[in-house]
Amino acid sequence: MNVHGKPYRSLWWDDSDARVRIVDQTALPHAFRVAALASLDDVCEAIRTMRVRGAPLIGVAAAYGLALALRDDASEAAEARAATALAATRPTAVNLRWALRRVRDAIQGAPASERAARALVAAAELAEEEVETSRRIGEHGLAVARERWQAVRGRKPRLDVLTHCNAGWLATVDFGTALSCVYRAAAEGIPLHVWVNETRPRGQGARLTAWELGEQGIAHTVIADVSAGHVLQRGLVDWCVVGSDRTTAAGDVCNKIGTYPLALAARDNGVPFHVALPVSSIDFEIQDGVAEIPIEARDPREVTHVRGRTDDGRDETVAVAAPGTEALNFAFDVTPARLVTALITERGVFPATPEGLAAIERAR
Amino acid sequence: MNVHGKPYRSLWWDDSDARVRIVDQTALPHAFRVAALASLDDVCEAIRTMRVRGAPLIGVAAAYGLALALRDDASEAAEARAATALAATRPTAVNLRWALRRVRDAIQGAPASERAARALVAAAELAEEEVETSRRIGEHGLAVARERWQAVRGRKPRLDVLTHCNAGWLATVDFGTALSCVYRAAAEGIPLHVWVNETRPRGQGARLTAWELGEQGIAHTVIADVSAGHVLQRGLVDWCVVGSDRTTAAGDVCNKIGTYPLALAARDNGVPFHVALPVSSIDFEIQDGVAEIPIEARDPREVTHVRGRTDDGRDETVAVAAPGTEALNFAFDVTPARLVTALITERGVFPATPEGLAAIERAR
Repeated sequence: MNVHGKPYRSLWWDDSDARVRIVDQTALPHAFRVAALASLDDVCEAIRTMRVRGAPLIGVAAAYGLALALRDDASEAAEARAATALAATRPTAVNLRWALRRVRDAIQGAPASERAARALVAAAELAEEEVETSRRIGEHGLAVARERWQAVRGRKPRLDVLTHCNAGWLATVDFGTALSCVYRAAAEGIPLHVWVNETRPRGQGARLTAWELGEQGIAHTVIADVSAGHVLQRGLVDWCVVGSDRTTAAGDVCNKIGTYPLALAARDNGVPFHVALPVSSIDFEIQDGVAEIPIEARDPREVTHVRGRTDDGRDETVAVAAPGTEALNFAFDVTPARLVTALITERGVFPATPEGLAAIERAR
Repeated sequence: MNVHGKPYRSLWWDDSDARVRIVDQTALPHAFRVAALASLDDVCEAIRTMRVRGAPLIGVAAAYGLALALRDDASEAAEARAATALAATRPTAVNLRWALRRVRDAIQGAPASERAARALVAAAELAEEEVETSRRIGEHGLAVARERWQAVRGRKPRLDVLTHCNAGWLATVDFGTALSCVYRAAAEGIPLHVWVNETRPRGQGARLTAWELGEQGIAHTVIADVSAGHVLQRGLVDWCVVGSDRTTAAGDVCNKIGTYPLALAARDNGVPFHVALPVSSIDFEIQDGVAEIPIEARDPREVTHVRGRTDDGRDETVAVAAPGTEALNFAFDVTPARLVTALITERGVFPATPEGLAAIERAR
C-alpha cells in the first residue's frame, strides 16, 4: 500500500545486498524507517521486539530468517536450530510454524549447496502467496461490506467500521486482512469511517492502523479500547472486523488482547463481528481456543511504561505506574466461536462453526 | 487512609489559613503533593483538571467551592453564579449537583453576614457524612466479600477481586466505595489480591488504585483494561466490584468508560459484578441510563498523549499517535442494570432493579 503516495510492502528481499528489508514498525508513526535484516539473529530480534508483527507477516519473516540461517550454515543441524529459534520468538501465532514447515519441506532432499537458494525461493513464493491471499480476503470482505452498507445507507452518510489492533498491510506483506476488506470497500466507493481501538498496551491501533488509514486517505477516529463498548452502545458502529493470530477447528478466534470483550460488546448491541484471516492461520488440530492455545505473556513493562514522542520531537519512555508496581501483560485472548458472525478468508466467507471450518479446509 | 503509614483524607479544611487542602491526584503516583485551594476558581480548576476526582469527592469539593465563593461575595447572584460554574465542571456525576443543593438549602434565609460561615459548616458536615457513608459501604461490602470468599476458599488461597478506575479513598473523602469493601475485607483477615484495570485514558487504576492498595499493603496486579476479559476467561477473578458516577432509578450504572465491557465479560464468565455507591450518586429522576445520562467527552489529547515519569525522574508527555490524528474521548459509559449483580450502598445491598432502587430510597 501507499506511503507518502509511493507503493510499499511491509517486507521485501533486496537482491542488491542480499538482505531482507522491513518497515520498522516500532518507529511508526513518528518515523517511517526501513531496516535491513542480514542474519537469523536479526530476524529473531525483529520478530521478538515487534519490528515486524502480525501473524501473516511473521510467518514470511521467519521463512526468510531460515533462508538467511542456511546461507551461513546449510547443515540439517543448523536448519533445525534456526527453526527452533524462530518458532520460539512468538508462541501464539500458528502460521509462523506453518511457514517454517513450508520452507523446510521445500528444501528437503536438496544438495547442501542448493539448500540456502531453495529456501530463499520458497520464502519469496510464500511472500507472493500472502499478498495474493490478502488481496482475495479483501475481495470476499467487499461482499460483506456491501451488505452492511446496503443495510444502513438510507439512514446515514457513511459505513462506520470498528477494528482492533492492526490487521492491515503492515501485519501482512500487503493489503492486510481486516483492513484489506476496508481498502477494497473504499476503492469500490463505499463511504467509510473507521473507529480505531488504540490497542493497549503496545498501541498498534493508534500507532499503526491510524497511520495506515491516514496514508490511504480513509477517515478514522482513534478511541481508547475501553470506549468501544460505549461507541457500540450509542449506535455509532455498523460493522466490526478484526484479524486473527490463530483460529481453531471449532471457530474460536485467538487475536490481540481485547478482541474478546469487543466481540461481547458487538453481540450485546447486535452489530456483526467478522474475523478476516488467511487459512494458514487456522489450527485445524485444536478445537477449544481457551483451553488449547498458549497465550503469550510479554514484558510487564509494556503495561507500566509508554513510549512516544514529546511535542519537541524527542522519543521518550515514561512510567504510568509507580516504580515496582506488579503488572501482567497477556498479548492475546480467545473469542469463542459463538460470538463470531463469520470468518472472511481467501477461500470465501464461512460460519465460525465446526462445519464452517471443515468447509474452509475442503475449499480451494 | 494511610500514606507512608500516616492517616490522610483526600480533602480537608485547614483553619490555620482558611483554605481547602487536597491531595493533588494528578501528581500521583510519582509525587505525593498536597495543594491549597483558596477560591472558587481554584476549586473549579481542580475539579476540571481532575486534581480532585471521583463522584463523592467532587461533590464535597464543590460544596467547599461554594463556601469559598460566598466568602468573597455573599450575594445571591454570586451564589447562583458559583453554583452554575461548579456544576459545569463535570456534566456526568450527579452528586456534584446534589452537594451544591445541600449547601444552598443550608444557607437559605440566613443573613448575608452569616452565609459564608454557614456554607462552610454545611460543606464540613457533608464531608463527615461522606466519610461515614464510605465506612458503611465497606461494612455492607464485607458481607458480599465474605460470601465470595466462602464460595472459593476451599479451592484457592486468596480471593481475587477485579476493579476498574479508582473507587478508593482518593475518590471519596476517606475509605472509598468499591475499595472500602476491599479494605474492610482485608481488615477482617480475608486474604485478598486485586486485579487493577489500568483505566485508560487517564490511568486512574495504574496511577491511583495501585498506589492506594500499595500504601495499605494489599497485593495487586495492574493489567491493561483489554486484559480483563482474558483474566476472567481464565478463571482468575472471583469478584468484580466498581464504583458509580450516576445510577438510575432502574439500576443502570454510569461509571468510568470501560465498565460496561467489563460487566459483559464478568457476566459471560459467571463472575458476580457489584457496584458500590453512595445513595447521593443515585439519580431517582431518570430510568434509562443510555438514553438519559449526558456522557462527558474530554480533550482527545488525553487519548493521543500520555503523561508519565522517565526513568531518570523527569515528567514528560509523549504522543502515542501521529500528530493530527483524530480521536474521541468519552469519559463514562452505562452498564445496563441487567448486568449488575447488586448495588452495595450505605443503606445495604440491593438488587439493581426498579424495586431495588425504590427500596434504597425508602431505606434509612
